[in-house]
Amino acid sequence: MKLNVITLAVQDLERALAFYRDGLGFATKGIVAADVQDPVSGAHGAIALFELEGGLLLAIYPRADMAKDAKVLDPGPNSVEFSLGHLVGSRAEVDALLRAAEKAGARITEPPRERPWGIYSGYFSDPDGHLWEIIWNPAMPNARAFI
Amino acid sequence: MKLNVITLAVQDLERALAFYRDGLGFATKGIVAADVQDPVSGAHGAIALFELEGGLLLAIYPRADMAKDAKVLDPGPNSVEFSLGHLVGSRAEVDALLRAAEKAGARITEPPRERPWGIYSGYFSDPDGHLWEIIWNPAMPNARAFI
Repeated sequence: MKLNVITLAVQDLERALAFYRDGLGFATKGIVAADVQDPVSGAHGAIALFELEGGLLLAIYPRADMAKDAKVLDPGPNSVEFSLGHLVGSRAEVDALLRAAEKAGARITEPPRERPWGIYSGYFSDPDGHLWEIIWNPAMPNARAFI
Repeated sequence: MKLNVITLAVQDLERALAFYRDGLGFATKGIVAADVQDPVSGAHGAIALFELEGGLLLAIYPRADMAKDAKVLDPGPNSVEFSLGHLVGSRAEVDALLRAAEKAGARITEPPRERPWGIYSGYFSDPDGHLWEIIWNPAMPNARAFI
């Protein structure tokens, strides 16, 4: 199965763009389709896309528009729906990346430590509460730089 | 940036495993690390992994354990946090895949239709409410079969 896009629902598109583009250094063309609105659902088109390795797109899209486009109710933000996991090459890289994310405006929810399933990891949450787990796993050699 | 893992928080690990493995046909070794518990947070290790194309892992993990592991509060399930997007090769494939997902126990939240940003798409939600958008985009030729 090929997953093509992960779209994160965000409260404030400009704030999320600043966090991922300016804070974390993810490459993007910025907000696109800002002039498009769906006459059926009322959802706006404005979205920003970050191209990750392997052809995967990370998108940020206002939660009100996602709710309209998917026709679901929006009860407000919630951290515990998913986490995005990124492998790095050492414990020191886990520590450094969490510090960099905090400097960019993220909140460290759980400082890095050894976990009994064989990894060293910690979590940060982005300005909308979305969890990222930064992981050093000696059993998974395909670690890459974050950006 | 290489994203390595997307972990979906689920209420019932067996139910989610049945949906993705038996309903949608995703390959997996089933639940692993069921005998591991973190003495610091109390989080259990039990998780199931599905290997997607490009080295990306899709994981399902109980939401109570994710909350403990990431040290965040769990206010309960919420559909509008993210969506996972999968491209297929035609409008007919969008229709067929949504029908197959519904048969597997998904709920169609938004039937497929043309959207003004140049795609034909519809949404289903998995048994935990996680949104999948199935997309035909004539501008993106890298469509693959779902499984």
